[in-house]
Amino acid sequence: MPRFAYVNGRYLPHNQAHVHVEDRGFQFADGVYEVITVIGGKFVDEEGHMARLAGSLRELSIPWPVKPASLRFIMRELLRRNHLRNATLYIQITRGPAPRDFKFPKEPVPTLVLTCRRASFQPPAALEKGVAVITLPDIRWQRRDIKSVSLLPQALGKQKAFEAGAFEGWQVDEQGFVTEGCSSNAWIVTQAGMLVTRAPSNAILNGITRLSILECARALGIAFEERPFSVAEALAAKEAFMSSAGTFALPVVRIDGQPVGDGTPGPLTLRIRQAYLDHVGAADPLLRGA
Amino acid sequence: MPRFAYVNGRYLPHNQAHVHVEDRGFQFADGVYEVITVIGGKFVDEEGHMARLAGSLRELSIPWPVKPASLRFIMRELLRRNHLRNATLYIQITRGPAPRDFKFPKEPVPTLVLTCRRASFQPPAALEKGVAVITLPDIRWQRRDIKSVSLLPQALGKQKAFEAGAFEGWQVDEQGFVTEGCSSNAWIVTQAGMLVTRAPSNAILNGITRLSILECARALGIAFEERPFSVAEALAAKEAFMSSAGTFALPVVRIDGQPVGDGTPGPLTLRIRQAYLDHVGAADPLLRGA
Repeated sequence: MPRFAYVNGRYLPHNQAHVHVEDRGFQFADGVYEVITVIGGKFVDEEGHMARLAGSLRELSIPWPVKPASLRFIMRELLRRNHLRNATLYIQITRGPAPRDFKFPKEPVPTLVLTCRRASFQPPAALEKGVAVITLPDIRWQRRDIKSVSLLPQALGKQKAFEAGAFEGWQVDEQGFVTEGCSSNAWIVTQAGMLVTRAPSNAILNGITRLSILECARALGIAFEERPFSVAEALAAKEAFMSSAGTFALPVVRIDGQPVGDGTPGPLTLRIRQAYLDHVGAADPLLRGA
Repeated sequence: MPRFAYVNGRYLPHNQAHVHVEDRGFQFADGVYEVITVIGGKFVDEEGHMARLAGSLRELSIPWPVKPASLRFIMRELLRRNHLRNATLYIQITRGPAPRDFKFPKEPVPTLVLTCRRASFQPPAALEKGVAVITLPDIRWQRRDIKSVSLLPQALGKQKAFEAGAFEGWQVDEQGFVTEGCSSNAWIVTQAGMLVTRAPSNAILNGITRLSILECARALGIAFEERPFSVAEALAAKEAFMSSAGTFALPVVRIDGQPVGDGTPGPLTLRIRQAYLDHVGAADPLLRGA
């Protein structure tokens, strides 16, 4: 149970962390966020997350609530106050409170909220078994490159996956190509051994973990292509996995109930996962559980 | 300045009306809303708004936070405490606070928020002159029939319209047809005198004011068609207007800088507006300003 949250200049007991009912994050989904994993006190891919946060704010013309350097301080102070060294840190910035009106307030006072909790990484059992995904239509808006809190379709998709006994939903565009998971990027390894994931565009969020995994693949000399792949291609793949700040590279062994490859985590997936763990400097045996 | 708001069982001073930072309305846009105009203490189209609210909740599997009858009581009590008889009432229901997770909480405790403010209807000058709209691509998700708070694209569109000196943005689908305004439905009157507005589907929100206006048209014996119209057709129209709970039927006299008809509010538009005002029982001279 988290002890403290941060809201607009104050470290508050978690249950007293509130925003105004006319905050534009609450009324218009007019805000952005980042989720950063902290391992042994180290903020994984911190530069990537900070850069993307800056990009999201810029795209929506939301001013920084504090200077980026101050935000970095707050991130650390919040963890310190919560006595956490392995954590999931959540940062949300909105255009702030204003009398309800669709158009932007003239002088916005953006809202900054940070919460954190003890990291709950996938248990080794999940990793050994891999996870199942289902596919579903991608019904989201057309600016999926912005990490906004306009997440209702993703929440609906994730719930649908959960109800189908799956861990994630892979969203599929009108041409039949997988865009990405509801809160992760989607990857396959073809029968020819090619690693494939969709190229960044307005159609997907360019995951920070996704970018780091591409770096790992480069370092390992693994051939990869950034291009769309169809559901049929995913079903015929040798391996599949998903990536996110919280799951790293997590093997996907079933898609819509059908096994991927032999239905167990693939060797390339596990190599990439290990390389990513090395990249993040993970020493926790759980994280090395594979 | 509003005095009191309602949040989860309590009538609070407006500046103390808060929700938790982990409310799913704040983190996932996982909520719905209604805006109801109150004239002389009468809730305009109350049954329609209550029915649509029920529909939105059902579509998202969000439980009622209180019984509908209790909500009706709260609506009245909030106005009474604010000494308002002409007001804009805002109701928002979310799936409530829960530790952050995309999928739904097992036992949701939905959040209910109501705010109100003195009604600020269009001044007669705006009505006499009519308003300008611009057209912009409709980049929203595919469940626009649900009145969710996933409103970021609409906020961006409205801001774009404002910056272009227009009052509203008419969103246009990939086929070149107008879907609707950012916070209103879109209407034209063709050169042949036919009233046209898009038929309800997942592509638009079926406005409660829209439905009442169709009733007014029926009662007046005005021929209408529910079908998509293109931007070109709108530019060539004899008249145009927009409708919403707050603007009723508001004349549109410019689209993308080009005059509609002779660039003044059209006679059919004004007849419909008057019929709608009669329907809502508006006695305020401002409302009869046309």
